[in-house]
Amino acid sequence: MPKVGVVLSGCGVYDGSEIHEAVITLLALDRGGADAVCMAPNIDLTVVNHLSGEEAADETRNVLIESARIARGDIRDIADVRADELDALIFPGGFGAAKNLCDFASKGSDCTVHSEVSRLVREIIAAKKPLAALCIAPAVISKILGDDKLAHKLTIGNDEGTADALEQMGSEHVECPVGNFVVDPANKLISTPAYMLAGRIREAAEGIEKTVAELLEMI
Amino acid sequence: MPKVGVVLSGCGVYDGSEIHEAVITLLALDRGGADAVCMAPNIDLTVVNHLSGEEAADETRNVLIESARIARGDIRDIADVRADELDALIFPGGFGAAKNLCDFASKGSDCTVHSEVSRLVREIIAAKKPLAALCIAPAVISKILGDDKLAHKLTIGNDEGTADALEQMGSEHVECPVGNFVVDPANKLISTPAYMLAGRIREAAEGIEKTVAELLEMI
Repeated sequence: MPKVGVVLSGCGVYDGSEIHEAVITLLALDRGGADAVCMAPNIDLTVVNHLSGEEAADETRNVLIESARIARGDIRDIADVRADELDALIFPGGFGAAKNLCDFASKGSDCTVHSEVSRLVREIIAAKKPLAALCIAPAVISKILGDDKLAHKLTIGNDEGTADALEQMGSEHVECPVGNFVVDPANKLISTPAYMLAGRIREAAEGIEKTVAELLEMI
Repeated sequence: MPKVGVVLSGCGVYDGSEIHEAVITLLALDRGGADAVCMAPNIDLTVVNHLSGEEAADETRNVLIESARIARGDIRDIADVRADELDALIFPGGFGAAKNLCDFASKGSDCTVHSEVSRLVREIIAAKKPLAALCIAPAVISKILGDDKLAHKLTIGNDEGTADALEQMGSEHVECPVGNFVVDPANKLISTPAYMLAGRIREAAEGIEKTVAELLEMI
């Protein structure tokens, strides 16, 4: 069975991985005949109360420990994962992708990516293995490939401000509806807007399921 | 569109709602044409570190606030929800069902159910609206209906100890494989083992998707 790395960034849309996107990804991988290898960086995150939407100023949690909730405990520190163990890599979205895997949420196109995340993405790209990113996670890929001056195509849907930031980092941004995905065949790179555009869970699922199918097809 | 209440109990298999079961439920409801009404009790929970599996002795979190992660913030205190707003009710599993919605995890058949949970279940049963429970959540229903001396059938899969406890509380326990479900037509009650038996997410999904389809059919 092919092994697909799933990079998580916490557990909850406002401070971690978008939970629906992560679970739909895991289910699509399993139904597609692939084994998921869940991973996350071992760093702290700023907590957002998901009921009030406000930051819990006095509290931090650990990204790896919180991501373990989505993975039912079966998760590894991304620092210990090498591309040669994997056949493909996928990033669910959620603000955690833009706040914990990098600081795009606060710095925009001047962001910095977590060193182990950029190291693994570069290994995957160098090995010509397929890579997918959902929702806001293409911002992470944009920064890494842009810094490497690697021409590439991505989508985050149709949000102009975010699309502009991706173009500044070096991406060609392609508009895409929620139920579809964008492929960059040269880089084996796939992206879908998911909750950047989805109003309902089934809309996010449609694009994610197609993205995972394409990712597995590319292996 | 029919409205289906989804009773959450936190966010994570070891101290809250089983996340995969909850998301698969939400997706199946949306694809089945129903609106989910997420809810949870406004009480504290004991935190389990999902990486180590150990209890975090110095920390508590709030069930409603953590459940809001799964619901993307769109959630209500169960105390404010009445059966006449709903067409059906469903309980995902996870240890939270046995630790936060009741104390079955520590007390077994001598457990007590959270008063607002038992109040809403009794309203749904009295209104002859369909009710489903996944994984370990049938323990909650067993206690409520058993206390009311209401004869009923349920499954939690094939775990003998748990099945015995359910029978002690007043249920007729029916063994069931993970990809299927048990229906009690007299009480419009549906149950499926999900992660009581599932070894992979697709196995849990098969039974949950069938359960949700049956629940919507019964409305």
